[in-house]
Amino acid sequence: MNTDSKLEQLSRRNFFKKTAQYSVGAIAAASVLSPVTMRADDPAIMEEKEWGTTLGDPVTKNKYGMPSVYEHNNTRRITKLLSSGNWQASIAMCPIHEQEGIITPNGLFFSRSHGGTAQIDPNEHRLMIHGLVEKPIVLTMDELKRYPSVTRIHFIECPANGGPEWRGPQFNSIQFAKGMMSCAQWTGVYVKTILEDLGLKPEALWMLAEGADNSHMGRTIPVDKVLDDAMIVWAQNGEALRPEQGYPIRILLPGWEGNLCVKWLNRLEFSAEPFYAKEETSKYTGLLPSGKAIQHFYPLEVNSIITSPCPEKPWTDLKKGDLVEIRGLAWSGQGTITGVDISFDGGKNFVEASLTGLVLPKSWTNFSYMYRYEGKPLLLQSRSRDDSGNVQPTIDQETAVVGVEHVYHRNSICTWEVTAKGEVNNVHIRS
Amino acid sequence: MNTDSKLEQLSRRNFFKKTAQYSVGAIAAASVLSPVTMRADDPAIMEEKEWGTTLGDPVTKNKYGMPSVYEHNNTRRITKLLSSGNWQASIAMCPIHEQEGIITPNGLFFSRSHGGTAQIDPNEHRLMIHGLVEKPIVLTMDELKRYPSVTRIHFIECPANGGPEWRGPQFNSIQFAKGMMSCAQWTGVYVKTILEDLGLKPEALWMLAEGADNSHMGRTIPVDKVLDDAMIVWAQNGEALRPEQGYPIRILLPGWEGNLCVKWLNRLEFSAEPFYAKEETSKYTGLLPSGKAIQHFYPLEVNSIITSPCPEKPWTDLKKGDLVEIRGLAWSGQGTITGVDISFDGGKNFVEASLTGLVLPKSWTNFSYMYRYEGKPLLLQSRSRDDSGNVQPTIDQETAVVGVEHVYHRNSICTWEVTAKGEVNNVHIRS
Repeated sequence: MNTDSKLEQLSRRNFFKKTAQYSVGAIAAASVLSPVTMRADDPAIMEEKEWGTTLGDPVTKNKYGMPSVYEHNNTRRITKLLSSGNWQASIAMCPIHEQEGIITPNGLFFSRSHGGTAQIDPNEHRLMIHGLVEKPIVLTMDELKRYPSVTRIHFIECPANGGPEWRGPQFNSIQFAKGMMSCAQWTGVYVKTILEDLGLKPEALWMLAEGADNSHMGRTIPVDKVLDDAMIVWAQNGEALRPEQGYPIRILLPGWEGNLCVKWLNRLEFSAEPFYAKEETSKYTGLLPSGKAIQHFYPLEVNSIITSPCPEKPWTDLKKGDLVEIRGLAWSGQGTITGVDISFDGGKNFVEASLTGLVLPKSWTNFSYMYRYEGKPLLLQSRSRDDSGNVQPTIDQETAVVGVEHVYHRNSICTWEVTAKGEVNNVHIRS
Repeated sequence: MNTDSKLEQLSRRNFFKKTAQYSVGAIAAASVLSPVTMRADDPAIMEEKEWGTTLGDPVTKNKYGMPSVYEHNNTRRITKLLSSGNWQASIAMCPIHEQEGIITPNGLFFSRSHGGTAQIDPNEHRLMIHGLVEKPIVLTMDELKRYPSVTRIHFIECPANGGPEWRGPQFNSIQFAKGMMSCAQWTGVYVKTILEDLGLKPEALWMLAEGADNSHMGRTIPVDKVLDDAMIVWAQNGEALRPEQGYPIRILLPGWEGNLCVKWLNRLEFSAEPFYAKEETSKYTGLLPSGKAIQHFYPLEVNSIITSPCPEKPWTDLKKGDLVEIRGLAWSGQGTITGVDISFDGGKNFVEASLTGLVLPKSWTNFSYMYRYEGKPLLLQSRSRDDSGNVQPTIDQETAVVGVEHVYHRNSICTWEVTAKGEVNNVHIRS
C-alpha cells in the first residue's frame, strides 16, 4: 500500500524542494493576447460594494439552487411561429449563444412536446417490452435501474432545427434559428443489454417506442440502431430526467432525430415491419422537388454554428486591434467531429479553427479561433467535417439535393454578416 | 464537398439494403442479467393514468426548468454540527447517493461559504491582477471573457470531507459523511494565458487569490500550480457560475483543496513569500500527533466511495438471486483513476470493478460491479488507485501517518455494513 505521496505532501521541506525544482520562473510580458488596451487604474476596483461588507445569503436558502438574478435573460424562448396553435404542441428553444462547453444545464435544455409536459409519478410508471421477444416483460423503474448502467455525452437535436429557414432567414437570432438542440450527459441502460435477457426473435427488424403522455408519441426504429447504441435513460447531467425530457424515462438514439427519442417512454414493441405511427406519416417525412416524400431518414448530418459572435452576441463593444475568440459548436449524428474551418468572406477562403475540450462521438464539440478585430464588414461562416467523411454543405449544394420543401435535416453552412459597427445579422449566401 | 451521405440516407432503397446487410439478427434469451423474477402480467401497465388522457403543461410554463415534483427529496442538506454558529459560515452537502455519471447538476453542487453567498452584479465586478507582474491590470468580466477559453471536467472537494469521522462514524448517511464534493464541467481561462500577456517576474513564487465577498477569503497558491492548470472560471455546466459557486468568477485549482478555489474572485497578487492569510492559519492546517501543525498541503489524495448501496440506498427491496449493480465514485487530485477494487469482507479479499464512462484526470470516475445478491451480511468497501502510483489506504494506515486530530484530507477506505435484511450502515473497520 503506497502512502508515500501523502507523507511527502505532509513534509513541508519536501514540498518547497519540489516547488523550487519545478518552478517555471519568469515569463516575459508578450501582450499578444491582450483583449483590450491595458489599464490598471479602473476606479471601480476601489469602490466599496455592499456584498463586500455585509453577510451574504445563508447556505440554507436554496436546497436546490438557482442561477444568479443577473442571469435572468438566459432562458429558453418560444415563438408562435413554431407553435401548432397551442403551447402544448410547441417547442422552447435553447439559448445556445450563452452555451459554454458541451453540457447544457437541465433548466435550459430545449423542449419539444406534442401534448404538453406530462407529470408522471415514477412509482406508478411501467415499461413494457413485448412483440417479437422471447420473454415479454413489464418493468418498474426500480427494476430497470438494476441493470448495468451506462453514461454517455450526446446531443439531441430536433430534425426541424433551422427548418423554417430553407427559403431564407426568418430569425435574426441564433436562439430561434438554431436553438432546437442541446447536449447532456445521459445515464441509463443499453436496450441491447435488456435484450440479452429477453431474447430477440430473428424476424424482429423494427422497434416501436411509445410514450405514456396523452399524445402517445410513437416512432419506429430499425433494430440495427437499437442493438448499436440505443439507451433507455433515466438521468440527465447527474440527476433524474426533467419532466420536459420525459421523466422518468425516455429512449435516446445517439445522433438520430430528436423526435425518435420518445419521452415518457412506456412501451417498446418489436416487429417485422415498420409501424408507420401517426407522427411518421403526418410529420417527419421529407418532401422532395419531385413531389415524392421520403420516410426513414434518421441520422442527423454534420453541422456547426458560430455562437460568438452571433446576433445576440455582437462585436459592437470591440475596438480595432482587440483580440477576440470566435467560438462555436460542431456536431454530427454520424460520428466524431474531425475539424472546423472558418471563413471571413462568405466561403471563398477558409482557415482552420481549433477543436477545444472533449471531442466525443455524436456530441457537441467546441471550436475556437482567435481573431484580431479590424472593424471591417465580414461574412462569417463555420464548416465542419466528421470521421465518416462528411463535410457540411453550402446552401446551394443542399438544396440541389433536397429542394426547399424539406423542412427537416437542414445542415447547410450558416452565415453571420458582421457590419463595420460590429452588429451581427443572419444572412443566406447563395453562389 | 461530400454530400454522398445525405444522398444515401435520402434513398429509401439504400437505407433498407444497409439495414439488411448489418442486421445482427436473433438474440437467444440468456436471463443472466435479469434483475428480478420475470413478469409480464403487472396489472399497472393496463391502468389508465391521468397523464395519458389529458394535456400536460405548456412549454411556456418554465423558461428555466426545474426537477419533477417527485424528486423533491433530491436536495442539498445541512447540519448544525457542521455550522460555525450561523448558516452563513456553513456548508450544504451534495446528495451524492442520487448522483448519476460524473456531472453534478448546478442546483445540487455542494456549497461552502465563510460569510454567506454574495450576490454580485457582474457589471460592477472587477478582477485586479498585480504584485510581481510586469504589467498590473484591472479587468471587467467582458474583457476577461475575450481571452482564449478552456473547458474541463473536474471535481471540487472540501478538504474537510469526511473530516468529522477521524475518530469513528458520525453520520449513518453518505450525504453527510462524504457529500462535501461535486464534479462539473468548468469553462474559463488558464491563468498562465493571462500571464503571457502581463509578464511574471522571476521572484514571483506565490499567488494570493482573494474574494470580493464580506469574508474576503484569501488563499496562497504556489506559482507552479498556477502555471500548470489554474483556471479563472465563469461557467459551470454550460451556464454562468451559480452565486454559491462564486458568480461571476472563481479560481479553480484542479485536484487541490476546494477552499483554495476562491469564490467571488476579485484579486490575484503575485509575491515572493506566502501570504499566510486568515484562513491559512486559523483553518486548513493539519495537527499532527507530535503537536506540530503542518501548512501547505494542497493536492487531494486518491479516494473512492460506493454510492449504491449506501445508507440512503439500501438493498432492503432485493430478493435472493437478484442481480444488482454496485456503483460508486473514485477520484484523485493527483492524476487519473486507474482502477477500483471491491471487497465484500471488510478488506480481506478484493475483486476488480469496471471503470465506466469517461475516465479523466482530476475528475470523478464511475465504477461498477455486477453482484448477485445473496441476503448475507457484508462489509462492503471500495479501494481506488491512480496513475501517480497512489493506492487508497486503510484507516489504520492513514492514522499511523497523521493521527486523528488532522480534520483535513481524510481519504481512507470507507466501509458499508450490509445486514442480512439489506440495510446499510456506515462503520469503521480497524485491523
